[in-house]
Amino acid sequence: MKKGILFILSAPSGAGKSTVLKRVMANLKGLAFSVSHTTRVPRTGETDGVEYHFVDRSDFLQMKKNGEFLECADVHDNYYGTSRLAVEQQLDNGLDVILDIDVQGARIIQEAGELQAVYIFLAPPDLQELERRLRGRGLDSEVSISKRLDNAEAEMQAMVNYEYIVVNDNLDDAVRMFEAVILSERSKNRRGVDGTPLTVSLGTS
Amino acid sequence: MKKGILFILSAPSGAGKSTVLKRVMANLKGLAFSVSHTTRVPRTGETDGVEYHFVDRSDFLQMKKNGEFLECADVHDNYYGTSRLAVEQQLDNGLDVILDIDVQGARIIQEAGELQAVYIFLAPPDLQELERRLRGRGLDSEVSISKRLDNAEAEMQAMVNYEYIVVNDNLDDAVRMFEAVILSERSKNRRGVDGTPLTVSLGTS
Repeated sequence: MKKGILFILSAPSGAGKSTVLKRVMANLKGLAFSVSHTTRVPRTGETDGVEYHFVDRSDFLQMKKNGEFLECADVHDNYYGTSRLAVEQQLDNGLDVILDIDVQGARIIQEAGELQAVYIFLAPPDLQELERRLRGRGLDSEVSISKRLDNAEAEMQAMVNYEYIVVNDNLDDAVRMFEAVILSERSKNRRGVDGTPLTVSLGTS
Repeated sequence: MKKGILFILSAPSGAGKSTVLKRVMANLKGLAFSVSHTTRVPRTGETDGVEYHFVDRSDFLQMKKNGEFLECADVHDNYYGTSRLAVEQQLDNGLDVILDIDVQGARIIQEAGELQAVYIFLAPPDLQELERRLRGRGLDSEVSISKRLDNAEAEMQAMVNYEYIVVNDNLDDAVRMFEAVILSERSKNRRGVDGTPLTVSLGTS
């Protein structure tokens, strides 16, 4: 079976990542999300192995000690980690995998250099527009908006490390561009069975 | 103005290049064909500078002598050539340019290494299918079909030198894949004004 392609996606908060991803996942076959490990308690409706691999704190720390995570983070006293094995199993099953991760996590994976991956950054058109969107959805306090904007600005500095930049100025265009990146990577010559170059049967030998 | 991207496209005869290109050109903006120079006589309805730059033999040979062609060929006693200047003018005008060229021409440009280009190969699913298509259109003699198939097999050996391979198994899919390559190249980080890395305004400085 042809091994899948790993796409590593980062986007500042408010860039519209969830909406874009939802549309892209609905439109394209053979595409899956990476399933992270977490120590947080499952919410109602969440299934182990679907939204997350739910593990307890001691198991998580043991996995971390064993170097099983490509990257992991402590968010509000819960651990989140991306297991190398979980990602590789999906890729080995021939699925192209989207790993949705922040710029720090992406950088850790990129610098480790163990995994071949395609790095995509979904960017808001500019910070004024991001601010407008954050205010528009009415979910955030002034302090929170200010903090999100500071984070976004810092994250956008990391954009230079990404191979593709999809600017979410218009949702339809952003979805189309994102899909284009996935489809074009699938048609790349270097992609083939187990990473060997693609060969197309000439049908004569 | 942002400089255009050069796409170099090759396809064996019968791969469906004309049909795919027609659809892609109709769907995408900012895309143009490279206009070749030729010594052949304009056909009815052809306009100088649109289908071809029509030049006489002595001018063509002088241009060749001056090294003005990226590649040129003698086909049925007419010369055809791709002028470096003509391509660069289109790119400088911000157009993405498709240079439709055979594998030998593409190889010459690739080996010269003067132009940054994206190499795309449009392939028939296999040679049996190509043979079926050539017979199906009823335009070719047995000798011509046999020769076209030999050429196609030789051309498909050159496929390894192309960055992208779009297999034309299904027309809609091939058009979608071809467009995806163009769109994804447009969203690449390395593309920017005059080839400098893309920067997105943060809107704060």
